[in-house]
Amino acid sequence: MTAFEELMAFSRDTEALAQIAGRLGWDQETMMPRGAATQRGDEMAAIEAVLHARRTDPRIADWLEQARPTDAAGRRALELIGRSYRRNACIPPTLATAIARTTSVAQGIWAQARARDDVAHFLPTLEQVLALKREAGQALSDSGFGADAYDALLDDYEPGATATGIAAMFDQMRPRLVALRERVLGAAFQPDALHGRFPQAAQLALAREVADAFGYDWNRGRLDLAVHPFSSGSGDDVRITTRVDENDLFNCLYSTIHETGHGCYEQGVDPAHRSTPLGQGVSMGVHESQSRIYENQFGRSRPFTQWLCSRMQVHGDGFAAGAADDFYATVNRVRSGFIRTEADEIHYNLHVMMRFDLERALIDGSLAPRDLEPAWNERFEQDFGLAVDRPSHGMLQDVHWSVGLFGYFPTYTLGNVYAGCLHQALRKDLPDLDASLAAGVARPATDWLRERVHQHGALYRPAEVIERACGQAPTPEPLLDYLEAKFGQIYRL
Amino acid sequence: MTAFEELMAFSRDTEALAQIAGRLGWDQETMMPRGAATQRGDEMAAIEAVLHARRTDPRIADWLEQARPTDAAGRRALELIGRSYRRNACIPPTLATAIARTTSVAQGIWAQARARDDVAHFLPTLEQVLALKREAGQALSDSGFGADAYDALLDDYEPGATATGIAAMFDQMRPRLVALRERVLGAAFQPDALHGRFPQAAQLALAREVADAFGYDWNRGRLDLAVHPFSSGSGDDVRITTRVDENDLFNCLYSTIHETGHGCYEQGVDPAHRSTPLGQGVSMGVHESQSRIYENQFGRSRPFTQWLCSRMQVHGDGFAAGAADDFYATVNRVRSGFIRTEADEIHYNLHVMMRFDLERALIDGSLAPRDLEPAWNERFEQDFGLAVDRPSHGMLQDVHWSVGLFGYFPTYTLGNVYAGCLHQALRKDLPDLDASLAAGVARPATDWLRERVHQHGALYRPAEVIERACGQAPTPEPLLDYLEAKFGQIYRL
Repeated sequence: MTAFEELMAFSRDTEALAQIAGRLGWDQETMMPRGAATQRGDEMAAIEAVLHARRTDPRIADWLEQARPTDAAGRRALELIGRSYRRNACIPPTLATAIARTTSVAQGIWAQARARDDVAHFLPTLEQVLALKREAGQALSDSGFGADAYDALLDDYEPGATATGIAAMFDQMRPRLVALRERVLGAAFQPDALHGRFPQAAQLALAREVADAFGYDWNRGRLDLAVHPFSSGSGDDVRITTRVDENDLFNCLYSTIHETGHGCYEQGVDPAHRSTPLGQGVSMGVHESQSRIYENQFGRSRPFTQWLCSRMQVHGDGFAAGAADDFYATVNRVRSGFIRTEADEIHYNLHVMMRFDLERALIDGSLAPRDLEPAWNERFEQDFGLAVDRPSHGMLQDVHWSVGLFGYFPTYTLGNVYAGCLHQALRKDLPDLDASLAAGVARPATDWLRERVHQHGALYRPAEVIERACGQAPTPEPLLDYLEAKFGQIYRL
Repeated sequence: MTAFEELMAFSRDTEALAQIAGRLGWDQETMMPRGAATQRGDEMAAIEAVLHARRTDPRIADWLEQARPTDAAGRRALELIGRSYRRNACIPPTLATAIARTTSVAQGIWAQARARDDVAHFLPTLEQVLALKREAGQALSDSGFGADAYDALLDDYEPGATATGIAAMFDQMRPRLVALRERVLGAAFQPDALHGRFPQAAQLALAREVADAFGYDWNRGRLDLAVHPFSSGSGDDVRITTRVDENDLFNCLYSTIHETGHGCYEQGVDPAHRSTPLGQGVSMGVHESQSRIYENQFGRSRPFTQWLCSRMQVHGDGFAAGAADDFYATVNRVRSGFIRTEADEIHYNLHVMMRFDLERALIDGSLAPRDLEPAWNERFEQDFGLAVDRPSHGMLQDVHWSVGLFGYFPTYTLGNVYAGCLHQALRKDLPDLDASLAAGVARPATDWLRERVHQHGALYRPAEVIERACGQAPTPEPLLDYLEAKFGQIYRL
């Protein structure tokens, strides 16, 4: 075997072990008995230690030096392995193990705290996780990954992105979003909310139908319930989750469509990249562009909501549909609300911008965990005009920080921006998409994205894959134009 | 750290990784999308390679030499680690990986073959698995683990047992079992079968109640569906499975009680042994003694069936119970049947004896896989007086050989023998158990077993733990006496 082949064989087993760690994470949030949390922490720490040892195995340095890949995929695989090697080598094994063990247990504590609205129960854990991630970020930054700890952590989710760049993009977006929000909230026409109770079984049946509509492959996936919906796995084992509130069908449906977007991305990667570093989505931002374009540009489009309404009449015992335009407006109702994952397309980005500022302050040390709750509540009231009424509507709503995902939030809005660009390009290529969506067939959109984005996996860098798909570098304008047009029409502005 | 402490710390992580591999096995049989089978094979191979490397890590030899444990638990842990080290060191890493990958894929192929009644679909896989396990058995035997390949494999499931010893025990049991079978089948009184359809939801609700009755801890476990019910995991994450046939409620109920026995054993191990080689059941035979005593001596006792009957009237819409004695006889109905897991307490051991002879012949090479089906069918007709009507009622019924578990079957009857001994001793200590079972409270039996068996985990050797619990070395007499008394009374012999 050549050095390149040896490296790739070694990497293949590492990828398989990483898939196992991912499956354990899935299990933890969907299946695991509650009393197993501590034991699972030990298990996660053990496999994380194995992964860390493999990712920092000194043979990798030799292989990297000697390997002579013969094609672009091989060169990119080498680049990704080298990046992972150098990033992981910065983190002492004891720190890596401590992060794995702590975040595994932390998630259960966060879930308890959220259920009990008990910030004090979560604070010691948040302090621990934050301290460990600050240490990791600093170590990475000291080794040249990012200008500071925050950039170093962000770089893990969106290679190449910087807090300065994100902040500049947010500054560019905020005035148009705030102006649109104010016009919409002040409009004379205000859509109705959805009323009616949908039993869990009906919601899950409909959730499966919408995943079908986008071409999600059940032979290589499954749908389960989770407190905080997520998707998990690559290749032939790509699982999605959703949640059910019997008084809020849209929560389940749009969580499902969102995760279907993530799932179709992973299922669509070229099998030739399977078990290599190219065999999965390239970054969180690009991943999120897929979940968000499925959820919003397709799932909340007028034709698709028209089909959805007809299916709700079938599944929802006694659900009476009004006019198609009214239902479309109901789906896209804009309201100031506490919960990011339930936010409309305008407010969503304002949630993200707020979390971005708070987590930067947590990481640079200017905000202490014990001051997070007042800081959150003050900023929330300022941006959203609402007083947070309980911690589960505030700082305890999201799982991210409990599992150490600092630097992750901005990739949500980056994903929206990418989705805006992709949607603009896709619509030019698929003039008949609306007719298809009106029949509950979103597969042509999946096919377009599979061809332009999914199949490549991590072959191209994040911004590059978007640029290649759209023919131009990503900017926020297409998203903002789309939002203004869509909500201007719905709200009769 | 002392050498002993270093070894125990290393072992703790190995145990955690072994728990992960176990959880993957659980996932594969309960949750995994079907299309993921090949990928899962790679994942299992990767973690199996990690485990094999750890179990044969050369540092273990040094630690073993230098370690000075200070108590019995430490000495026993050392003995078990040494045994595992020496056994694993006999198996070349490529063979260990090949077994992991092949058996992982084989299980899916077996399930397909069983569903389609297609022996030819399964044969190439059986040949592969058998060849790998023969090679492993031979390597172990060459290194002193057992007189031949079969003994070497058996020793993995029941340390200290030999095929010669098992065969002698079976020879001792067979005449009394066959005589009892003939008297029972020839009796004038023959109980009715259970009639009526129980919907899946009612079966699963009742299954949860019976697990409750024995004190299974849901906070550290869960119940799911599987083709072939099994239990999985140790410590705080001990999961059980069952299956549902809507026309055969007993299948689900007694599978559940059986797996509850395994589960309570694992949940009952002293937390002080957690994450050490002592932190789980000591052998398959002792494990099976727990599942079988729960299933039969308690679950199929007259008082417990009386309670069960009352619960079936609550859960089974329109289920009409006759006299308590009739229901008890129905539960314990003796019939020649194809399926081991559905067999009555008399026939069950005859199934095991047949599999024991066949698998010994497969391992010693005197029976080729392609000749297994005729050999199975001929022997079955001879022992059971029935012609096998389809492979899923014959050689395709059990998962064991597909996953390489040669040498496992005899531990089932060994478990019955141990259960007979434990039951005799337990009844002397708990004269009021029947009154408790009649109220659906089997917890006193679990408490007795926890004290005498469960808590010790692997602290004592298999026969030793039974002997300590019963005050005498295990023999088949108590089981045979129990069977003759029970079925003599039911069948009015």
